[in-house]
Amino acid sequence: MRVPGRLVSALRKEERYLIATHISPDGDALGSSLALAEALSSIGKKVVLYDRDPVPRNYQFLPGWKKFSADLKKALRDDPVLVILDCNGPERAALEGISFRKTIVIDHHETERNFGDLRWVEKEAAATGIMIHALIKSLGIGITPSMAGSLYTAIAVDTGTFRFSNTSAPVLRAAAELVTAGAEPNAIAEYLYETWDSRRFRLFVMAMNTMERIDGVAIIHVTSDMFSESGASAEDTENFANLPRRIDDVRIAAMFRQTGPGEWKASLRSKGTVNVARIAEQFGGGGHKNAAGFRIKADLATAKRLLRDAVRKTRRSDKG
Amino acid sequence: MRVPGRLVSALRKEERYLIATHISPDGDALGSSLALAEALSSIGKKVVLYDRDPVPRNYQFLPGWKKFSADLKKALRDDPVLVILDCNGPERAALEGISFRKTIVIDHHETERNFGDLRWVEKEAAATGIMIHALIKSLGIGITPSMAGSLYTAIAVDTGTFRFSNTSAPVLRAAAELVTAGAEPNAIAEYLYETWDSRRFRLFVMAMNTMERIDGVAIIHVTSDMFSESGASAEDTENFANLPRRIDDVRIAAMFRQTGPGEWKASLRSKGTVNVARIAEQFGGGGHKNAAGFRIKADLATAKRLLRDAVRKTRRSDKG
Repeated sequence: MRVPGRLVSALRKEERYLIATHISPDGDALGSSLALAEALSSIGKKVVLYDRDPVPRNYQFLPGWKKFSADLKKALRDDPVLVILDCNGPERAALEGISFRKTIVIDHHETERNFGDLRWVEKEAAATGIMIHALIKSLGIGITPSMAGSLYTAIAVDTGTFRFSNTSAPVLRAAAELVTAGAEPNAIAEYLYETWDSRRFRLFVMAMNTMERIDGVAIIHVTSDMFSESGASAEDTENFANLPRRIDDVRIAAMFRQTGPGEWKASLRSKGTVNVARIAEQFGGGGHKNAAGFRIKADLATAKRLLRDAVRKTRRSDKG
Repeated sequence: MRVPGRLVSALRKEERYLIATHISPDGDALGSSLALAEALSSIGKKVVLYDRDPVPRNYQFLPGWKKFSADLKKALRDDPVLVILDCNGPERAALEGISFRKTIVIDHHETERNFGDLRWVEKEAAATGIMIHALIKSLGIGITPSMAGSLYTAIAVDTGTFRFSNTSAPVLRAAAELVTAGAEPNAIAEYLYETWDSRRFRLFVMAMNTMERIDGVAIIHVTSDMFSESGASAEDTENFANLPRRIDDVRIAAMFRQTGPGEWKASLRSKGTVNVARIAEQFGGGGHKNAAGFRIKADLATAKRLLRDAVRKTRRSDKG
């Protein structure tokens, strides 16, 4: 991966930055932003971190996470250069309609729009964290233990801790470098995966008890009543659909989470070549090949039936 | 890690080998043995692979796994040199009382006995697979894609795919080298973690429904009736106790699995500094600090009560 020289020059030249990342931030968004903010601060730059949404509880171990602010007015005060990370359009970062004197985009998602004065988009990069790691080295800045922890978390989250198909030799080498620089793999894994509270465990078991198989799709659901009974919240349901997906002959796992009376958010997870983004699109949703979602207004039985129909239709068109 | 020169010389000199590993073999035992067998075969040695127990279903993706034989007579026919891997005593490999003209031990567990003519035991190695990787390179043998896959699996299993505290920079660098040599991280992770059958899923949910908290210990159980009802088997329960261990204020998770009328096998899993081996020892069992087990004859309620008492006793002695 080659870091663009004019990006390095621009970051050296400018003095004030607003680093923003996407709404509903994940580990890659947060870890990449925090590491770059620390690196730029270390060479005397003024940096503000912005996200519309709060840092989720399970990422509140990241060094400096409290520096994220949702106060846009404050963020814009010094006429900063915008650096937008892990997404490539202003609306994904809740910055639509705001103009900046200069905008830098650093992302690894598929490019959707022509936004930014300086764009560095590496679709093949496993994580934005891999790019920021290379960038900080190109800036000649030493990786501190806290930068290393943030970047390791970014990479760990976007590769499923080295389980997804984007896990390559360069990814593992970058991870090794970050451990040498002070990242602690076990502590990070414990923060990411071993800190369920008992309400979340309770809701998880309740959700798994609802599992049913419809035409090769494993479906679970979480109703408002189940949220009340368990005391858990919506963010606790993240990745619940991964367990039914483990079943060997399941290609698609779906979770319906109730968001209001007769309103559901569906999360789809698939294995291998099954593209659930194409199914989600039929309901006005979207996502990636193996992880997508959509919203639907219907009673639960109807929502499940419509999903089943959409899966069938996609299968037919795949064959046709 | 330094590979002993006399080990390399010995392996070059001898012509016939019996590679044996421990009973109830895991991914490190199997992957290390298969990689070393392939390497030695590639330089013209005759190699037989022995394990008393069959290769578990979830490791039947390893290249060459069918070469493992439980036929000891056949294994001993050519007066081979014994190479014992991932354990360091003959009884762990079901070879007690048999004499060999030469015995080589390669292991990363704590040494318990003085067995073998040539011992290479690296307590600090994350996996025997790390040692075999270094050994094959020292022998000047190129790592093939199948060796790489076997060694990557060995390392992945013993580090929890890079989540345990033994995940170091050298471990990640070795993993990177193995990916370059042809190991496929995503395929291996899917084989290891994404191939539950539906009976296993059913038993998992039934087991989680039994979860109860007694004095900070999360306890689940699996009865013979639950095995019958789900159709799952004992090996399906591997790592079930890891889920309740995720709960943030749980330090010890235990699973009681019924092995007969009034007979149970208890598996203990702990977090951080809590040493469950010391608890298991009170019942004549043993294991490691964070993963141990014991057998007990009692009704379930009594077994749980005795465990609770042992935990209390250990806590008191920790404080005393």
